[in-house]
Amino acid sequence: MKEKATSFDIAHIAGVSQSTVSRALNNSPLVNQETRDRVQRIARELNYKVDKNASNLRTQKSNTIALLLFEDPTSDDSMINPFFLSMLGSITRACANARYDLLVSFQNLDDDWHAEYEDSNKADGIILLGYGDYLSYRNKLSQLEEQGTHFVRWGAHDKEHPGVSIGCDNYQGGFDITEHLVKMGHRSFAFIGDAGSHAPEFMARHQGYVDALSKHGLWTEDTPQFDAISTEDSGFHAVQELLEQEALPDAIVCASDLIAMGVLKALRLSPYSVPEDVAVVGYDNIQVSGFTTPALTTVQQNTRLAGEILVNTLLKAIAKQEVHDYLMPAELIIRQSCGSDNS
Amino acid sequence: MKEKATSFDIAHIAGVSQSTVSRALNNSPLVNQETRDRVQRIARELNYKVDKNASNLRTQKSNTIALLLFEDPTSDDSMINPFFLSMLGSITRACANARYDLLVSFQNLDDDWHAEYEDSNKADGIILLGYGDYLSYRNKLSQLEEQGTHFVRWGAHDKEHPGVSIGCDNYQGGFDITEHLVKMGHRSFAFIGDAGSHAPEFMARHQGYVDALSKHGLWTEDTPQFDAISTEDSGFHAVQELLEQEALPDAIVCASDLIAMGVLKALRLSPYSVPEDVAVVGYDNIQVSGFTTPALTTVQQNTRLAGEILVNTLLKAIAKQEVHDYLMPAELIIRQSCGSDNS
Repeated sequence: MKEKATSFDIAHIAGVSQSTVSRALNNSPLVNQETRDRVQRIARELNYKVDKNASNLRTQKSNTIALLLFEDPTSDDSMINPFFLSMLGSITRACANARYDLLVSFQNLDDDWHAEYEDSNKADGIILLGYGDYLSYRNKLSQLEEQGTHFVRWGAHDKEHPGVSIGCDNYQGGFDITEHLVKMGHRSFAFIGDAGSHAPEFMARHQGYVDALSKHGLWTEDTPQFDAISTEDSGFHAVQELLEQEALPDAIVCASDLIAMGVLKALRLSPYSVPEDVAVVGYDNIQVSGFTTPALTTVQQNTRLAGEILVNTLLKAIAKQEVHDYLMPAELIIRQSCGSDNS
Repeated sequence: MKEKATSFDIAHIAGVSQSTVSRALNNSPLVNQETRDRVQRIARELNYKVDKNASNLRTQKSNTIALLLFEDPTSDDSMINPFFLSMLGSITRACANARYDLLVSFQNLDDDWHAEYEDSNKADGIILLGYGDYLSYRNKLSQLEEQGTHFVRWGAHDKEHPGVSIGCDNYQGGFDITEHLVKMGHRSFAFIGDAGSHAPEFMARHQGYVDALSKHGLWTEDTPQFDAISTEDSGFHAVQELLEQEALPDAIVCASDLIAMGVLKALRLSPYSVPEDVAVVGYDNIQVSGFTTPALTTVQQNTRLAGEILVNTLLKAIAKQEVHDYLMPAELIIRQSCGSDNS
């Protein structure tokens, strides 16, 4: 591998002092245009990377963590999903507590984000957060590893990439909340949420749901399931379809609280009451879920803890300490929408 | 291997000049939206890669906006105030739409943040957002201006620093919501929120409240006011004090929704009902305020619009276009907690 070009190399080739190089690269008016152009051309030819400031040159540290946000491309492009917003807040706060700045960048899964931070000194490490087709970006993780880029990701353990995944036990969460509904006496069910392999969080919740129903002999192949994305609209329309088909079950299990909000909204416009006629449960425990009428039974993803663990694991990786995958336990939050008032 | 696409290729296909391509890819407002979209689409189709370093060398642009967050030092250091979190989400989204990254940095008002971004190429401009004693950082704005740093701030117009303030009409909001309560027949009042000059947003809301009461002959010097910061706890304790003094008024005006949440919580534990015995109103229209029981009457601060205006004004300033202060109108959101159901 070739050695990195330094400002000294540029100075030598351009026949100027190092401080002139520095000024020219900063476009200082103290250096005439012709010299500026020449220095900048040589810098480009040498593939010289400007570091953000002198102290960064010495330490190679930016004291910045990059957060790459991948979004469900179908989501509303004018607002951020409340679960991600909560994670964004928690990660921002955890960075501040560690005296790091946070560089937030929206990315498309298809883009070359894995190369973006390769040599630049923009950030000391990367947090990957988002919904989307995990399988399609899995190979990019290998590239990050080859580059020696420090990163952690929000998601389930992946045996090909050990030590970089912090996630919530979605399978257990789906299982526990479904079994709770069974124990409350509910016998017919519907699941609203995509259960395909490109949405691994939802798929794991759905698998837990299926296994809980199977354990109690309640699973059948024709138990309704809707390939909904995480929006209120998806939940709203799924309920409309159930009502049209006169197929409203005893209990509706939603893959996210946002879907459950839409379900509650559709049921308020129907002759059916929650939880008397139909139980509804969500997933995430976003802030509003404690304030709905009835208050929503859900599974907590502790975003505050998640942000802390993501940032602290990344900082350990940056410090070249050993890091581990972390699977946060799923925590059932029992409120009124499932028919139980926890009393 | 195919040869790399150049900006010349894009210019040729788009039928525009190379400099228009460059501006369009940098999302310069000098290029109209339609052309920007077309150029960016062609660039994506050609899998065109901007050489970040070379391009930054030429333009001295980082394509990054810095968000400096100043916090009420008394706030809970494990979470972000929901109003700020909503602003953070909206600013992040507006940056993404403009293809800018966002560098988020928590700051203490006392720190030398005004010098931090002076010579560094970390960001093309700065957004200042936060509660705190405005008077204590006013002189730092002068220094930013002298440095030629591009910045905008969330807050009221300041005649010493024209063109950099985007804010909400807090005075009008305080006036309107109070007058609404008066028109509903309420005659005795209390205000919960700091009304000192170091909290200019709350002070303006309080002044609007006082003027509305005065207009209707309802203002007296001994109308209770509590120097509360924006937390649930502040609201909770203020109500406890009112109850102990047997001084519960007809209506409680809170300087923020978070305070109002604490007020509602304290009243739920009391023999008094909202809105039958006492009306409660908030300020901000944070997401949960539509879900409380009863739903909270409040004044909307449109964070989605605010984020867009902050980012777009800053981008104009960076592009050396003329910019203006912007005072967003206060919008009354009438729900049930004031006794009116808007019917």
